[in-house]
Amino acid sequence: MKPDFEKGGGLIPAIVQDAASGRVLMLAYINEEAWERTLATGKAHYWSRSRGKLWLKGESSGHVQLVREVRIDCDADTVLFRVEQQGGAACHKGYASCFFRRLDNGGAWVTTEERVFDPEEVYSK
Amino acid sequence: MKPDFEKGGGLIPAIVQDAASGRVLMLAYINEEAWERTLATGKAHYWSRSRGKLWLKGESSGHVQLVREVRIDCDADTVLFRVEQQGGAACHKGYASCFFRRLDNGGAWVTTEERVFDPEEVYSK
Repeated sequence: MKPDFEKGGGLIPAIVQDAASGRVLMLAYINEEAWERTLATGKAHYWSRSRGKLWLKGESSGHVQLVREVRIDCDADTVLFRVEQQGGAACHKGYASCFFRRLDNGGAWVTTEERVFDPEEVYSK
Repeated sequence: MKPDFEKGGGLIPAIVQDAASGRVLMLAYINEEAWERTLATGKAHYWSRSRGKLWLKGESSGHVQLVREVRIDCDADTVLFRVEQQGGAACHKGYASCFFRRLDNGGAWVTTEERVFDPEEVYSK
């Protein structure tokens, strides 16, 4: 059984979780090709909606995600990748997790983490 | 700053994680109204794509999600709800998590959990 790619018009969300800490790192989208390549290589591949192309996560930064476990939800329209994050950071802004901001009681977004890397340094190489 | 609802045509994904265990429970979609009601009530509200209506999670089952923390990703187009799951089960099929199936090495989906409740009993009330 494959994920139900038709439901999302060819794309479904992949939740990415750190396999060791359980932390949610990011959400990205996969099409059938990204799914097949992820399974074949053990490295997370996604479909970039902004660039309109298949994307090996870490191809620019080196921060590859080694997929340790794949789960699927009850409706087969979302997958969960439990990964080992190379370089310690999933976010292109340099944070370990893309969810580095928390809503405080006053309704403001508060950054709760330190950057692991400087994006300008990593992506200008 | 609000989530970028326009990017997803009015709907963005919400990842739902158990606040205590760190387990990923489900993924659902929110529109602006679901977002506002979730913040106002502290109980997770979603937009049901299949039913085309706002949905208080647990309205049928009693399995409400008390939202303990809200996070947003770098692009502001995905949110993370860290919740206290009432009734111990997020999935309408009776499992604690919707991600109750793992892909095994042979490419088959294996159910790795026991049901917490019997859906026929809970939803026929």
